[in-house]
Amino acid sequence: MSIHPLAGFSFRTDQSLQHQLRQALSQKILNGEIAAGTQLPSSRKLAQDLGLGRNTVTMVYDQLKQEGLIRSKQGAGMFVSEGIQARFQSEQGLENLEMADLPPISNSSQKLLKTPVSSQAASLPFAVGVPDLKAFPDKIWNRLQRAANQRPHLLGYTGIQGLLELRIAIAEYLQLSRAVKCQPDQIIVTAGAQAALSLVSQTLLNPGDKVLIENPGYQGAMRAFSSRPCNLEAIPLKNSKLDISKLPSRTHAKLLYCTPTHQYPLGGILDSSERLQLLHWARQHNIWLLEDDYDSEYHFNSKPFPAIQGMDTRSPVIYLGSFSKTLFPALRLGYLVVPSQLVDVFLHAKRNMSGETSPALEATLAEFISEGHFYRHLRKMRTLYHTKWLELTQLCETYLQGYASILASQAGMHMVLTFDYPNDKTAVNELVALGVHSKPLSNYFLPDIKEATDQNNGLVIGFGNTPTRLMPELVHKIRLVLTQSH
Amino acid sequence: MSIHPLAGFSFRTDQSLQHQLRQALSQKILNGEIAAGTQLPSSRKLAQDLGLGRNTVTMVYDQLKQEGLIRSKQGAGMFVSEGIQARFQSEQGLENLEMADLPPISNSSQKLLKTPVSSQAASLPFAVGVPDLKAFPDKIWNRLQRAANQRPHLLGYTGIQGLLELRIAIAEYLQLSRAVKCQPDQIIVTAGAQAALSLVSQTLLNPGDKVLIENPGYQGAMRAFSSRPCNLEAIPLKNSKLDISKLPSRTHAKLLYCTPTHQYPLGGILDSSERLQLLHWARQHNIWLLEDDYDSEYHFNSKPFPAIQGMDTRSPVIYLGSFSKTLFPALRLGYLVVPSQLVDVFLHAKRNMSGETSPALEATLAEFISEGHFYRHLRKMRTLYHTKWLELTQLCETYLQGYASILASQAGMHMVLTFDYPNDKTAVNELVALGVHSKPLSNYFLPDIKEATDQNNGLVIGFGNTPTRLMPELVHKIRLVLTQSH
Repeated sequence: MSIHPLAGFSFRTDQSLQHQLRQALSQKILNGEIAAGTQLPSSRKLAQDLGLGRNTVTMVYDQLKQEGLIRSKQGAGMFVSEGIQARFQSEQGLENLEMADLPPISNSSQKLLKTPVSSQAASLPFAVGVPDLKAFPDKIWNRLQRAANQRPHLLGYTGIQGLLELRIAIAEYLQLSRAVKCQPDQIIVTAGAQAALSLVSQTLLNPGDKVLIENPGYQGAMRAFSSRPCNLEAIPLKNSKLDISKLPSRTHAKLLYCTPTHQYPLGGILDSSERLQLLHWARQHNIWLLEDDYDSEYHFNSKPFPAIQGMDTRSPVIYLGSFSKTLFPALRLGYLVVPSQLVDVFLHAKRNMSGETSPALEATLAEFISEGHFYRHLRKMRTLYHTKWLELTQLCETYLQGYASILASQAGMHMVLTFDYPNDKTAVNELVALGVHSKPLSNYFLPDIKEATDQNNGLVIGFGNTPTRLMPELVHKIRLVLTQSH
Repeated sequence: MSIHPLAGFSFRTDQSLQHQLRQALSQKILNGEIAAGTQLPSSRKLAQDLGLGRNTVTMVYDQLKQEGLIRSKQGAGMFVSEGIQARFQSEQGLENLEMADLPPISNSSQKLLKTPVSSQAASLPFAVGVPDLKAFPDKIWNRLQRAANQRPHLLGYTGIQGLLELRIAIAEYLQLSRAVKCQPDQIIVTAGAQAALSLVSQTLLNPGDKVLIENPGYQGAMRAFSSRPCNLEAIPLKNSKLDISKLPSRTHAKLLYCTPTHQYPLGGILDSSERLQLLHWARQHNIWLLEDDYDSEYHFNSKPFPAIQGMDTRSPVIYLGSFSKTLFPALRLGYLVVPSQLVDVFLHAKRNMSGETSPALEATLAEFISEGHFYRHLRKMRTLYHTKWLELTQLCETYLQGYASILASQAGMHMVLTFDYPNDKTAVNELVALGVHSKPLSNYFLPDIKEATDQNNGLVIGFGNTPTRLMPELVHKIRLVLTQSH
């Protein structure tokens, strides 16, 4: 009388059974595996067959009924509704549409049409840019977030700049830890660093403007400026940091993007004298400095040099920070510090591009900082990453000696290996097949300017979210890939 | 021996005492009200003076110590650190910087330099676009969010398109409720509707392209397209909805933005025949339709007409939805449904503009939909808004008869009043002074095309977050403002 619609179905442990049962059933109904009019087993029977509580099945049936996917017939049980599948399946027709059948798209999109977006296999060990997610104090965070969610006005709109209590907390942190000179009114909260980069691009730059950028440098910044579209010009590095002597003495550039406190990805650190030279150069040429204070929180052996932004009161500096690396990426909160006169234009641009950031999240973060958890967490993570860094450095020195050079500045959450052979993109693919993540160093170079040097072939490996106990095996796999080509 | 640093300080009830004490003390230290070297009262003394638990004061002192704001001297107590204030106060110098002292900004920003961003007084009653925040089931939401935050990989990066489980849940909802034809792979999760509009603008349009838009229409859309920058061309309304007969028969426009299911802000609804005409016109002229399915969830008396997107399998339609009105604005999640061939270019643009949306939030929302809470909440809110709408319509008809015409389509969370006098911007300012929010109808018209008609002077009033019991007094205040000018 009734079929078993989920024969052989197995449940995962990381989601509720109810959720999985509902999703499995509704998908099978929508894609036609369970036909319209089919009678479903009684909740008692299905519960028994699947080893679930009867309540779970009853609740799922109720949900499917509310959605109109199934209906009950008096005294006869539950049946799959008619007419549902026809609606779901007719979208197949769209698949046959050619691009030529659609209106035109933008020129920049046209160029990207056949380029799939690379997927971040961020769940594999050695993924770059992922902090230790298990070390995050989620219980404290959840308590604060619950409290914020219970203040109804924080669920609505509170203003485009970001919640004042968060801007106060950030301003204090920046003043104390980074010697940034700012009032809370100069801070603009953004939905992460990438949104902040786009905002700077939109607010300060015209399409076609020239932007100077470290090479190798941060891909996210390159993308934000390229899509304005701006013209990127590379400034080379020396000793793994921006080579101040290579700053152009005549240039029409509008902005220079840099990571002075932990060059991304090579890890060099500009000292105070270099910072002053850079600032002097920018003022002289009337060029914006976009200071991405990347990894300033994770210097293992010494306090980082104070931010360039605070070195003078007449600085053409936009300061950029994010909580993705210090707390967790999914928080999606970052910020800019901008000169007072520009606050309004930045707010206009933020409103046009993305609208408000979440006041409930902002309040949670403000409280997290104010109650001291942020400072405590940074200290804890600095120690943790230092330990991981020591372990990984030692392993690489022991097992990769002779195959790769190790660039391991005493800061941050990643390390760079350089080598001549094999090609780094090949190596990365081979490593993914072995369950190890990393990024090819050549990816961090501007597309046009990849002269073959011994410095642009290598691996960037992140140790932030990688447990120390896994490292020996992971380094061994890297050795395997590197030695095969010798 | 020690001063009382917080004489006269009063605590609020909506934040923790610890938080307020810490913030008050650190601000007074940083701005110099409590001078460097000052001894603070003992924790016992301060607790007594302020009526706080001693533990609270001790914890705050500990936090301030960790931040370096105060330090303890053996046996002598707590003192404000030296050198802190110098750093904090020297940012004052920046205030004196002139725009001329800074590098140039973008041309579009230049135009906005002296325009302050209007602040949303969204906390006043009758604020437009705010759902009933107290009716949101925050306990259920918090439980689901806590569960999501405990899955560490959801705190990291999971992919630019948005979590698959959320895209499945959205696809099902759209298929069942709106007859949208799509696979989960065609859905792109965005950080709200404004981010989605910017994404469409970046992906489909070149600077200078012509975009057709309802007039009056949605300001957020106008802003997103204007800042690309595109040229906006107005299509007038008839019976409060897009006038299909006014669609140009020859045009180089690239895209038409419309709100067919509840015209924003006037509230008209395109019927099936008009939808088909619009679709036919778009295909004939090879023009994108951006279908903003605004307020489709809140039709009081009948099911809304199916979405245009699903009326044909060869539709040049981009479909836009958001959870800001159905759940809460601070969630900051929306989505686009795009043709399969364009998914990759949209993902490129999303990555460049804003990066990922939050997987932890996406998982929470997916579970909220899958467990049936979303559908339940929509039903509850539909009834609630219907009740509020009935009440407000009756009040307006009773008390504003003869002073204003009422445009009250049986849907949504706002209502429009039109009148000849007074000027609507003046009326809005007078109402804010009386503690009542509303928006001038003239704001919803394209800047260039504000011919004086009897239809462009009025008030848009939101009843979503306004309790019914307050309405008589609020309508009375509107009457006051409208009658003063007669």
